[in-house]
Amino acid sequence: MQPHKGVSLWTPTTLVSEDAMVKRTSFENAECPIARSLEAIGDWWSLLIIRDAFLGKRRFSEFEKSLGIAKNILTLRLRTLADHGILKSVAAPDGSAHMEYELTSKGHGVFPILVALRQWTEQFGDRKVSTKLVDRKSGRPVRKLELRAQDKRLLDYKDTAVRPSA
Amino acid sequence: MQPHKGVSLWTPTTLVSEDAMVKRTSFENAECPIARSLEAIGDWWSLLIIRDAFLGKRRFSEFEKSLGIAKNILTLRLRTLADHGILKSVAAPDGSAHMEYELTSKGHGVFPILVALRQWTEQFGDRKVSTKLVDRKSGRPVRKLELRAQDKRLLDYKDTAVRPSA
Repeated sequence: MQPHKGVSLWTPTTLVSEDAMVKRTSFENAECPIARSLEAIGDWWSLLIIRDAFLGKRRFSEFEKSLGIAKNILTLRLRTLADHGILKSVAAPDGSAHMEYELTSKGHGVFPILVALRQWTEQFGDRKVSTKLVDRKSGRPVRKLELRAQDKRLLDYKDTAVRPSA
Repeated sequence: MQPHKGVSLWTPTTLVSEDAMVKRTSFENAECPIARSLEAIGDWWSLLIIRDAFLGKRRFSEFEKSLGIAKNILTLRLRTLADHGILKSVAAPDGSAHMEYELTSKGHGVFPILVALRQWTEQFGDRKVSTKLVDRKSGRPVRKLELRAQDKRLLDYKDTAVRPSA
């Protein structure tokens, strides 16, 4: 599902009311970086395909089996992910005619999003999560994602604001 | 869009091949914490509504105007978000008949997901982002979300693994 074309994003109204020093700026539609990321990866299947790629799946048949997804939908999603430079198709190492899919660096960059989604369920879900994300070296669960200021102070949402970038 | 019911999630196949010490476990469908979070917030509109709530919007008409979303869709999304305990409806402070919507603590917990989505576009998007997320105190941009081990080592995706939890 895609948002209506007329969506107005990161409207600076709030900024103005909160901080009169910030001039009202007319942001273009779809300028919002959150909406832009959702355009590339913002549907269930795309994120679950990326998750599976992180888990080592590479072949069409592996994604199909893991996700229980219709072939035509999977084909479309893989193509969209490739068009966005998140996955790239490569020849199978066994020399067969199969193509395999691997994450690009942009695809690997989705990792914090997956971790944030996981941790939200871990913290707020209505039942226990049956897996955990661990640090390979120690085998211990990772810490919660941390958002910090330049001087390393830990930041909560209340400590942040959205501003026009110069 | 919702994934097919038959979706198999966090299948431990990879774990087995990577670490023979981990026994193969039969995870139930939809046990995956990522899929579970997507069930609650995994569509464009829901995430953009939550974003708007973080930006201070509270009224139906404010979300409608910001998102350019059809009334019936917005009604459904607000209800779903309330059903999931992400938003709660409260009486308007002006004593009018209007209801307002505010984020619960579970809703505030979505913040790292929004930050991760934003930062991905900042890093990998094809054009500059017109806003920045700043630390209110210093006015300087926040740092990238950090994933750390218990002993505080910074972790990349390669340093992590998914394991059955106990």
